[in-house]
Amino acid sequence: MNILDIIAKKRDKKELTRNEIEYFVKGYTDGSITDYQAAALVMAIYINGMNERETTDLTLFMAHSGDVLDLSSLGEVVDKHSTGGVGDKITLILMPIVASLGIPVAKMSGRGLGFTGGTVDKLESIPGYNTNVPVDEFIQNVKKIGISLIGQTLNLAPADKKLYALRDTISCTESIPLIASSIMSKKIASGANKIVIDVTCGSGAFMKNIESAKELARVMTKIGELAHKETKCIITDMNQPVGYAVGNTLEVIEAIDVLKGKILPEDIKHIITELGANMLILADKANSLEEGKTKILENLKNGKGYEKFIELVQNQGGDISYIENTDKFAKAKYILPIIAEKSGVVEELDAYKIGKLSVFLGAGRMKKEDNIQKEVGFIFHKKVGDKVEKGEVLGYVHANEKDKANEVINQLIYEIV
Amino acid sequence: MNILDIIAKKRDKKELTRNEIEYFVKGYTDGSITDYQAAALVMAIYINGMNERETTDLTLFMAHSGDVLDLSSLGEVVDKHSTGGVGDKITLILMPIVASLGIPVAKMSGRGLGFTGGTVDKLESIPGYNTNVPVDEFIQNVKKIGISLIGQTLNLAPADKKLYALRDTISCTESIPLIASSIMSKKIASGANKIVIDVTCGSGAFMKNIESAKELARVMTKIGELAHKETKCIITDMNQPVGYAVGNTLEVIEAIDVLKGKILPEDIKHIITELGANMLILADKANSLEEGKTKILENLKNGKGYEKFIELVQNQGGDISYIENTDKFAKAKYILPIIAEKSGVVEELDAYKIGKLSVFLGAGRMKKEDNIQKEVGFIFHKKVGDKVEKGEVLGYVHANEKDKANEVINQLIYEIV
Repeated sequence: MNILDIIAKKRDKKELTRNEIEYFVKGYTDGSITDYQAAALVMAIYINGMNERETTDLTLFMAHSGDVLDLSSLGEVVDKHSTGGVGDKITLILMPIVASLGIPVAKMSGRGLGFTGGTVDKLESIPGYNTNVPVDEFIQNVKKIGISLIGQTLNLAPADKKLYALRDTISCTESIPLIASSIMSKKIASGANKIVIDVTCGSGAFMKNIESAKELARVMTKIGELAHKETKCIITDMNQPVGYAVGNTLEVIEAIDVLKGKILPEDIKHIITELGANMLILADKANSLEEGKTKILENLKNGKGYEKFIELVQNQGGDISYIENTDKFAKAKYILPIIAEKSGVVEELDAYKIGKLSVFLGAGRMKKEDNIQKEVGFIFHKKVGDKVEKGEVLGYVHANEKDKANEVINQLIYEIV
Repeated sequence: MNILDIIAKKRDKKELTRNEIEYFVKGYTDGSITDYQAAALVMAIYINGMNERETTDLTLFMAHSGDVLDLSSLGEVVDKHSTGGVGDKITLILMPIVASLGIPVAKMSGRGLGFTGGTVDKLESIPGYNTNVPVDEFIQNVKKIGISLIGQTLNLAPADKKLYALRDTISCTESIPLIASSIMSKKIASGANKIVIDVTCGSGAFMKNIESAKELARVMTKIGELAHKETKCIITDMNQPVGYAVGNTLEVIEAIDVLKGKILPEDIKHIITELGANMLILADKANSLEEGKTKILENLKNGKGYEKFIELVQNQGGDISYIENTDKFAKAKYILPIIAEKSGVVEELDAYKIGKLSVFLGAGRMKKEDNIQKEVGFIFHKKVGDKVEKGEVLGYVHANEKDKANEVINQLIYEIV
């Protein structure tokens, strides 16, 4: 077997065998297959596609290219994943709730990159919260209190990491089989047996239209089936940010407010009940979506989700006085209003634009090495469909530099018609 | 402009602009575009194709990526090129003849690589022949005697060299637009204004079937038209070796024997008259193919081609006593007969197999750095269609190692039915 024949097969739109895919993943991981050979194969895959069997084999060999987390001692773990977005604080809200309903939560999350945020950055907004704990301690935490949320402390799916970085430099990011196998390989390497995936769709997501979101959902569900990792995908809107806050600390505060029962934005309610109900069904803790949704809302309202969140923060070394009184969180230096220039209805609050502007403010990273500013971001008062009056405050920009705040405000953040 | 957008366009089967192709060729030559980015683009071109305008632009930017030879002081130069093969000594025979008919011949040839031979290796079989002369001396030689055949002493089309080497490592050699632009860029860089190309077709050529040979011929002719370099392509058979000799010294001796009028194998006669007549027409030295063919055969028969060859060798420092008496050439240590194992008709004498076996004997190179043995190779007595008797000598293997000679003889060189 050699890489030239493998490239030639996919170039000619033929199906690659399991052994050929294994040969490629191993060779690319150990460096015996070069970046330019991988680039040629990836482009051939992009153009000529891969069927579900090939995609599943790629997923599994990438999943096993590095460490694979063993969560079998924890019972029936159901993992949750989002394909990324702007203002997405669902993990912070939903996982304590499902943990309070008896599903063990052992989740390694990522950092934000580009216009999308990451759960680890958000958790680290809480003073003292340690996202970097050894695996055995991580497992012990889940055994003790039923939940642990940390960063990626293992070398999970290094083949995927390498291929993901390469795709970025050769215009091959938007390939459904490559996106699906990338996501699923990381999930499988992180030990999940059952997975619920929030497939975000819209300007602030990687899937810009409903057709590609549906196709991605279909392929990931199929990979789950072929790999014996039961997978359920929910497609959710990402044309505007989730909830009313964007930015690390600001989103943590919003999540706490939801868990405290102070607020419950419609979109957040929709997403946590849909994802949560499916998680409960997969864990055999609900018989129907209806029952599952009721249970999720119940443990939100009765405060059990909030209690579990407090337990989680305490257990990870975080200072719970910040959770109990969110006024303690440090604020950005400049908090400037966004004023409506005319009356009408909000037609657009573009998630992609907000994502880019929040990176500009310092809330996110363009490169992995960049530092972030936890306090900066946006608080919106109005979302799509809301009526507004000329001169009304639509929201606030939180910034540490006045120039940047003004530059952001001068952008057309809200489109009103 | 950036390479990601250019890759994405060709990935999506769109036409690249002239500026985009220029950006790619310049960036890849200077290293600002990486091998893996070039690999992705080349694979996209392989699969999605390029139209004639794109192919011509790629040709011209590659042609001008390094030195461009200026032959304008020589008058109407008509270049000749072969797409490569086994036993191809046509340049050695034809170029002295056309030079004797008044067409200036200023030709830089290549060395053999893989299963195909190269004219420079053959010329260097002649003791003293210098293939490595400075450009001004090369031009002076042509002005003085009308012909000079040397190696590639200039940095011709470095972008093509880089892309050609890359294609080899990513299974993208057999793309018609890429092959056509590679050949034409080298020809244009080497100063030709009018070009006759021998498009070889068969097992011992890069084009294995007549359809792809015709398509390559069509595209190169079109590039010639769009680039204002009048180009004429002739398709010739390369299923069996050209003539009766394969190997550097052995081919030189066969060429000399043809020029001396001692032999004229049918295939050699066909190729030199077809190519030669077209060269004469392009140079306005014949009005019809018939007239051109007659002139070529005339100057072969009257010895003027041979005289020009003697002049050429002398002028390049070669020892003409070897030409006058070819028995002086060093011989291989072992000359072993190939014996017919049954009676019948020769159905196959596979050029590709002969090419590979001659490399195995030491006549050619697998890598650029390899040394070659000038004396080794094959002399065939029978070719396809010839009747043979069991026990008859079909040809001879010339080798410097007995083991290798025996191993070659034990291969099925002739297929007899």
